[in-house]
Amino acid sequence: MPTYTAPTKDMQFILHDVLKVSEAQIPGYEDLEADFTSAILEEAGKLTQEVVAPLNIVGDKEGCRLENGIVYTPTGFKEAFDQVRAGGWTGLDMPEQYGGQGMPYVMGTAVGEYFSAANQAFTMYQGLTHGAASAILAHGTDAQKDTYLPKMVSCDWTGTMNLTEPHCGTDLGLMRTKAAPQEDGTYKITGQKIFISAGEHNMADNIIHLVLAKIEGGPEGIAGVSLFIVPKFLVNEDGSLGERNGVAVGSIEEKMGIHGNSTCVMNYDEATGYLLGTEHKGMRAMFTMMNEARLGVGMQGLAQADVAYQNAVAYAKDRLQGRAVTGAEAPDKPADPLIVHPDIRRSLMDQKSFAEGARAFILWGATMIDAAHRSEDKDADGLVSLLTPVIKGFLTDVGYDMTIKAQQVYGGHGYIEEWGMSQFSRDARIAMIYEGANGVQALDLVGRKLAADGGKHVVAFFDLVKSFIKDHAGQDEAFDKEFLDPLKAASKDLQQAGMYFMQNGMKNPNHALAGSNDFMHMFGHVCLGLMWARMGWTAKQALDGGASDKEFYESKLATGRYYMARQLPATALHLARIQSGADTVMALTADQF
Amino acid sequence: MPTYTAPTKDMQFILHDVLKVSEAQIPGYEDLEADFTSAILEEAGKLTQEVVAPLNIVGDKEGCRLENGIVYTPTGFKEAFDQVRAGGWTGLDMPEQYGGQGMPYVMGTAVGEYFSAANQAFTMYQGLTHGAASAILAHGTDAQKDTYLPKMVSCDWTGTMNLTEPHCGTDLGLMRTKAAPQEDGTYKITGQKIFISAGEHNMADNIIHLVLAKIEGGPEGIAGVSLFIVPKFLVNEDGSLGERNGVAVGSIEEKMGIHGNSTCVMNYDEATGYLLGTEHKGMRAMFTMMNEARLGVGMQGLAQADVAYQNAVAYAKDRLQGRAVTGAEAPDKPADPLIVHPDIRRSLMDQKSFAEGARAFILWGATMIDAAHRSEDKDADGLVSLLTPVIKGFLTDVGYDMTIKAQQVYGGHGYIEEWGMSQFSRDARIAMIYEGANGVQALDLVGRKLAADGGKHVVAFFDLVKSFIKDHAGQDEAFDKEFLDPLKAASKDLQQAGMYFMQNGMKNPNHALAGSNDFMHMFGHVCLGLMWARMGWTAKQALDGGASDKEFYESKLATGRYYMARQLPATALHLARIQSGADTVMALTADQF
Repeated sequence: MPTYTAPTKDMQFILHDVLKVSEAQIPGYEDLEADFTSAILEEAGKLTQEVVAPLNIVGDKEGCRLENGIVYTPTGFKEAFDQVRAGGWTGLDMPEQYGGQGMPYVMGTAVGEYFSAANQAFTMYQGLTHGAASAILAHGTDAQKDTYLPKMVSCDWTGTMNLTEPHCGTDLGLMRTKAAPQEDGTYKITGQKIFISAGEHNMADNIIHLVLAKIEGGPEGIAGVSLFIVPKFLVNEDGSLGERNGVAVGSIEEKMGIHGNSTCVMNYDEATGYLLGTEHKGMRAMFTMMNEARLGVGMQGLAQADVAYQNAVAYAKDRLQGRAVTGAEAPDKPADPLIVHPDIRRSLMDQKSFAEGARAFILWGATMIDAAHRSEDKDADGLVSLLTPVIKGFLTDVGYDMTIKAQQVYGGHGYIEEWGMSQFSRDARIAMIYEGANGVQALDLVGRKLAADGGKHVVAFFDLVKSFIKDHAGQDEAFDKEFLDPLKAASKDLQQAGMYFMQNGMKNPNHALAGSNDFMHMFGHVCLGLMWARMGWTAKQALDGGASDKEFYESKLATGRYYMARQLPATALHLARIQSGADTVMALTADQF
Repeated sequence: MPTYTAPTKDMQFILHDVLKVSEAQIPGYEDLEADFTSAILEEAGKLTQEVVAPLNIVGDKEGCRLENGIVYTPTGFKEAFDQVRAGGWTGLDMPEQYGGQGMPYVMGTAVGEYFSAANQAFTMYQGLTHGAASAILAHGTDAQKDTYLPKMVSCDWTGTMNLTEPHCGTDLGLMRTKAAPQEDGTYKITGQKIFISAGEHNMADNIIHLVLAKIEGGPEGIAGVSLFIVPKFLVNEDGSLGERNGVAVGSIEEKMGIHGNSTCVMNYDEATGYLLGTEHKGMRAMFTMMNEARLGVGMQGLAQADVAYQNAVAYAKDRLQGRAVTGAEAPDKPADPLIVHPDIRRSLMDQKSFAEGARAFILWGATMIDAAHRSEDKDADGLVSLLTPVIKGFLTDVGYDMTIKAQQVYGGHGYIEEWGMSQFSRDARIAMIYEGANGVQALDLVGRKLAADGGKHVVAFFDLVKSFIKDHAGQDEAFDKEFLDPLKAASKDLQQAGMYFMQNGMKNPNHALAGSNDFMHMFGHVCLGLMWARMGWTAKQALDGGASDKEFYESKLATGRYYMARQLPATALHLARIQSGADTVMALTADQF
């Protein structure tokens, strides 16, 4: 059975050595001393390792069961959820006013990685609730906040997001769910929603659905979409639960993975709904949470890659097979462990250098979200908006690939479900799809974010890379050569790709969009390159300063060198593809496929 | 539900326009006129589309069931297997002497792709039988051949290959299964084998297990391994079935995919075995079939990619979502079909250019196997041996990626099992693992095949590329630029990588092996590049000659251009990784992971 070990040391390294959070000028960050974050991370580590992770394979095997309108979650989920609630983990970064602990988002993100890695399907119940609560927090009236938030912050009530319908996912303008205004100011919601994660289950007293629907008589298409609060049980004035609302689960989907999460078809039949935010501005309300939600999904890509990596390492050290080509390393044993073989190393180094780079990238992104929310830092907001599709798309694409690499280390055993490696990849697969499929992320990046605010955020990004290189160049020849030169080259490739889009996308936008996926990936590589340069420099300084934990910092430097030498050069390939333009991509008629 | 359409037109194009099989000087090929192969392919197409493919999702859903020692295959499998047997498909390329149809291997390969694409799990029952029969054909005594082959060629009896044990897969020298010599010349086989595909099932009267085991008192390690025939039911002198042998299924594995195939733990308890071939030369006997078996697995990579692609195309034409960025293409509909979007096109072109290139590569490989077997062409044998790990490793790695791309086109529906796209990827995943995990293929390529026979086969490969370029250059400027120049550049990258191995691998073999996976992939790209150059030229000539089916040939040219512009440049990235050497790969101690 697979195991999970929370990477607290690595998390602390990024938070304190690299990002230096407690020195950052962001309200609330002054509390984030190393001892404090360490205590939280240790506790979260214990809970996720001991309680949440062991249920991962149980959830996969049992799945959820629908009987007479009740959805039963897998054995042990309810008890574990109670423990999570009791520990106050569900409200870690929610306002104290509503019962949360008021910590910055970066701490929610760090802890969230542990939960996701330990059990993605389980963690989604609280993740969805967090998202729905954030929407109410941002757009709700005071009365709505008072009614729903205390219960949602504690996860006594969970939440859902209802966007997709059978005939439309990305293109929500095609939506058919209707909202009929009532005289008392409420609406009657009627329609069908699909792919609703945590749509119905037996772990909470109430479920608060956030539902996109069109108010009758409103504008056509996406401009006529509004967002509604539709509780499973109506809530009485005194906060007690009232009558059952007209919403019911139709069926549970049979999915490739995340079996422990109940993905439901939800039927709304004149269900009572309460407008959340402004009429016809439902998409805007959804989008205000998008940066957070998408960063959270990017984190899932990292999380599954990391737990899969951990198990691949354990197997590679344990499994004896063949001999090192340079001579037996365990001559007393019948064979050497897999980890002596260069191609196994290559695979593990791919995984390790990705996971650690991605972790830094996500935490950095989370600090920008905090800066945007807590300091109203518009530049941070702009930059993280630009990077959000990269975090979501790149980290879930590559994170998935890494779970496949980890599975491969197991050979035939990787294909057998009891070893758990198949589940990591099957669970990770969904992250490339939901919260905006990765093709949509690439489109968002190239079609919208690049040019946002006159392109100032992408300029800021390049400035950041440039000044990092300038500030650190010429001090150490090896560091220049191993870290800064590759970063400079990759960043130049990225700039050239942007240039190509500008010069050719105006004439024909297909020239930009045909390269959008490659652009997202090369952008991701440059970001991870920047993270590795920062981490490498930090490690080098620690070593130069005589840090006691030499092994740790040397491993950081070596892993960074690997990323720079073996992964970052991918930018040149992406650039070549982009520069080949749209002609070969668009040449065929539909019939020629 | 997904569907399958056998690509007979494409198969005919490769067989006759590109490879010109009926003109090849290989015994038996003179019969392969276009009308003849077309008739066979049409029939195979009908059977696989109508009978075999509809059972694919059934097999995935139901899986196999073990009850009181009997393994029940999914609903409909037995009846379909009867139809396949009745049609004589199982012995298509087996000798007429044993009831086969005596056709060349290339025809078995072409038809085999249809079967694999339609239903990989189902097709494995006959595929394993084919492999076991080939081993008996190559190494059996006349009596053994007469006893087993007629029944195995017809698949009245099926076959298995028993290599893996719980503690060893790749490193078979660690094997523990024992063979105790008996006075009558037979052996008593005792031990446990795992991952035995089609190990037990209810679709055949007898199952002929080929089992690797160590004869007591023989040499240590791999040099002491012999191969045995161990029938489920002993066969009487008159060919009738005798008593049950001491072999039994222990359990069925729960796997990520190919649920319709029974993957068994097999327990041998003093089972009667008959030596196949020479004592202690079991590995050699297995390896004589390796080229065929590995080419067959490479074909599975293509087959799953192709059927997944077909369904992705259908979905992309059908699903309305969003508008073309260059203006509505279906203004009468609420939205345009997905296929208008450049990023969807990119994905479909990746898939299409891979599938068609891979098909040509495999059929070319199959003609070399025929040349080796039927004409005793040593050069063909050497070249196909060199290319075999590339066919197996590259085509299954990339084939798998393509099933993931196809699944992605479906968005959320791709994650739901009823749409069938998840199954294609889950089934395709095993091909990267079995018949030698792809890391082992890369090792075989770089550590053994490159230098085999003094390196003459890799030289022959480069000569082949060079002379193709020389023979076709300077006749058409566009063709030079679009096809020959990229092929030349990629081939040069590959040569440089080989050079790097020679110069550095001597000092430290890790410098070669750390690049083995990249080398296998760049080799694969050059092969597909060569195939596309050949197909492109053939299409161009057809168009220049006024061929009536312009759409088809133009689509070939356009798809080839795409591969050359967007896929082939990957060789430069692989080269850069290889040239970065082993230092960053091997830097960490095992504890630092």
